[in-house]
Amino acid sequence: MPRIDSVRVRDVRFPTSLELDGSDAVNVDPDYSAAYVTITTSDGEQGHGLVFTCGRGNEIVAAAMESYGALLLEQDADALLDDLGAASRLLIHDSQLRWLGPEKGVQQMACGGLLNALWDLKARRAGKPLWLLLAEMSPEELVAVVDFTHLRNALTEEEALQILRRAQDGKAERIAELQRDGYPAYTTTPGWLGYSDEKLVRLSQEAVDDGFGMIKLKVAGSLEEDRKRMRLARETVGPDIRIGIDANQRWEVGEAIDWVNALQEFSPYWIEEPTSTDDILGHAEIRRGVAPVKVATGEAVANRIVFKQLLQAGAIDVMQIDSTRVAGVNENVANLLLAAKFGVPVCPHAGGVGLCELVQHFSFLDYAAVSGSMHDRAIEFVDHLHEHFTDPVRVRRGRYQAPGAPGISAEMVPASVAAWEFPHGSGWQEVGGRAAVTGRRTTP
Amino acid sequence: MPRIDSVRVRDVRFPTSLELDGSDAVNVDPDYSAAYVTITTSDGEQGHGLVFTCGRGNEIVAAAMESYGALLLEQDADALLDDLGAASRLLIHDSQLRWLGPEKGVQQMACGGLLNALWDLKARRAGKPLWLLLAEMSPEELVAVVDFTHLRNALTEEEALQILRRAQDGKAERIAELQRDGYPAYTTTPGWLGYSDEKLVRLSQEAVDDGFGMIKLKVAGSLEEDRKRMRLARETVGPDIRIGIDANQRWEVGEAIDWVNALQEFSPYWIEEPTSTDDILGHAEIRRGVAPVKVATGEAVANRIVFKQLLQAGAIDVMQIDSTRVAGVNENVANLLLAAKFGVPVCPHAGGVGLCELVQHFSFLDYAAVSGSMHDRAIEFVDHLHEHFTDPVRVRRGRYQAPGAPGISAEMVPASVAAWEFPHGSGWQEVGGRAAVTGRRTTP
Repeated sequence: MPRIDSVRVRDVRFPTSLELDGSDAVNVDPDYSAAYVTITTSDGEQGHGLVFTCGRGNEIVAAAMESYGALLLEQDADALLDDLGAASRLLIHDSQLRWLGPEKGVQQMACGGLLNALWDLKARRAGKPLWLLLAEMSPEELVAVVDFTHLRNALTEEEALQILRRAQDGKAERIAELQRDGYPAYTTTPGWLGYSDEKLVRLSQEAVDDGFGMIKLKVAGSLEEDRKRMRLARETVGPDIRIGIDANQRWEVGEAIDWVNALQEFSPYWIEEPTSTDDILGHAEIRRGVAPVKVATGEAVANRIVFKQLLQAGAIDVMQIDSTRVAGVNENVANLLLAAKFGVPVCPHAGGVGLCELVQHFSFLDYAAVSGSMHDRAIEFVDHLHEHFTDPVRVRRGRYQAPGAPGISAEMVPASVAAWEFPHGSGWQEVGGRAAVTGRRTTP
Repeated sequence: MPRIDSVRVRDVRFPTSLELDGSDAVNVDPDYSAAYVTITTSDGEQGHGLVFTCGRGNEIVAAAMESYGALLLEQDADALLDDLGAASRLLIHDSQLRWLGPEKGVQQMACGGLLNALWDLKARRAGKPLWLLLAEMSPEELVAVVDFTHLRNALTEEEALQILRRAQDGKAERIAELQRDGYPAYTTTPGWLGYSDEKLVRLSQEAVDDGFGMIKLKVAGSLEEDRKRMRLARETVGPDIRIGIDANQRWEVGEAIDWVNALQEFSPYWIEEPTSTDDILGHAEIRRGVAPVKVATGEAVANRIVFKQLLQAGAIDVMQIDSTRVAGVNENVANLLLAAKFGVPVCPHAGGVGLCELVQHFSFLDYAAVSGSMHDRAIEFVDHLHEHFTDPVRVRRGRYQAPGAPGISAEMVPASVAAWEFPHGSGWQEVGGRAAVTGRRTTP
């Protein structure tokens, strides 16, 4: 009987702040990082998961994963993998640890990283990519992995079953379609605040040429700059390509409404994270104030309970799940079910490091076996750091190609881990000399 | 020029789970713990702060405080203490670390612990208890410590100034009154789920005899049990003593309404934490469904933005701030201002270890210089673990006596820290043999 033998967590960071890739109005100098976990059984099987962070603090998430990992050690691996709903409850509802959230922040991310590694292990055992493993589960099996605690006034087990049973119809055809044609992507590559106008125009044109139907620009630095950049982008891509804009929570509620309306002439498709993602009522007010521009949020939404309310309040047009913010596969299945119940499209957040690799599985699952629709849906794509993964995403002609390798696609290339483990990896030894990147501080 | 010389964090835990003090429907076996921080300047001045946890995971908060503490090292102590608003922004808006929240969970608690230690240092320098230091600050000075980010659609700087200026009237008299008569308390000592009926009755009678005007019972284990315990408590204390009930987030929204209404005949005064504290809309629905029973929440509310919405949505009758959940003194001043703006009374959460000591300062401040009212207000009191503090709370005839010693009352007795530092303190060496307390696991 195999047991969970080890839970090994490594602090892997990339010095992206040196290039200003990933710069926006709030995240001015991220070093894209991963608290990277490998769970090994006594039989030598391995599952990999990760939690994305922006650099400093990656060690805190790693410490939390170590602590939560202790709850898994010595557990019967077969029993654990046979009931990952129970595994989720074991971690999330631990009677002492839950005080640290409950169900939010470092705690939720750490649980999510471990759960994703367990799902990776399960999918590898089955020899299937995660999305296909999930899509082929019965409605009853899928409902059993979801924690309905505090959801039931919006979504019951029975309603979830109905959604999933409805999606059994045509599932095999949709799976074949996904394997053949992939799933739409949109790209944020052109739009970082740190880029020059020339680079913005060039990358926007490349995005159109590459077949993307939507690009995204970071905004909320200065309105004048935003108007200039929106104008340049719109002139470059023409009227038919969607342009999302993303404020990364920078604004007050009233400010968001005014700012977005001052960009209406350039027809932004959505405004993403206009204000604090904790501010459900604020998002609802903004949505009323900026229509027809859509409101999107989710990458910083702590858990399914906040998503539930964003949907109940009519606060969002687009739900942006993130693969490593919430409590892993289990909670993201809950999020997909909520979105399906309320008829809101899911356009996952990605980028960072590994987020594209992980989150694609949820959109593939959504089309195959939950919403059954691709209408107004696309997965974010940023073309950074994929070379560090053993099964990197493949985006062709603006579409994610179906992941085919067994697992959740979180496994990192061993040489990358060795080079970029912080602070002693060889890569850090080299850049450490010319820039104390993660030691840099935000001054008040 | 003194600088911040060290930030030392210790993991202090008490084996309270052995006695079932503190047991409720969710926290079934807490070991009350503190991530205890001492900040020392190059002049040898010290400030103390702490973050309360339930045992496992205390090491995660400690790790987070170490990481955030690095941002304070070598800073000019005078400059830092002269502008604690800037200190708050330095920690909370750190461009890389904020991803871990933003502003919630482990991250927010760690920032709060450090900020409280800085306030302790500032108050000790001034030779005043924290509440008096704050109460004697000008409205402009107090507004300057608050972070209004994402609050301004409910509370602007100007509105906050108006609230504080109004409260200048009679402030000196109210300070004198507080120093003479103290501030009302209510007690949770009788009501833990783990206690026998006999103990419930005995402790309820003692509470009345001791002069408390309100007691609180934990509920949500079983309705039958709750009805029995409520009946016993009501028979013991008579019709004039308020009985709060506390479900510790155990219920779904509809379930909360039904359960509370099944207890209406015993006239509960408030229902506390009926469901997830993230569920703003759920609380609003529950409040409509259980009137005239009041709805109270806050001990697990992550930040001022969630409190803002609970108030905007008319979701709570009583706001329960906690001293170590949010980002320290700064964010609790924001919370008091929000409550005053919406006319909702603040009845702080306390208990655990050190929470009574710290949180009393906010109610004293509130009466002296913010709301100016004690109407329907009381500070929670639980008579546990006060002996571990150098300046323990003094509750007499049902009232907290005004803290008089300089600081925030968070300093622990050195011998207590030595005995209960986890896992190597002498106390843990003794109990470790008979119960692997913190190793105990919640099974799924």
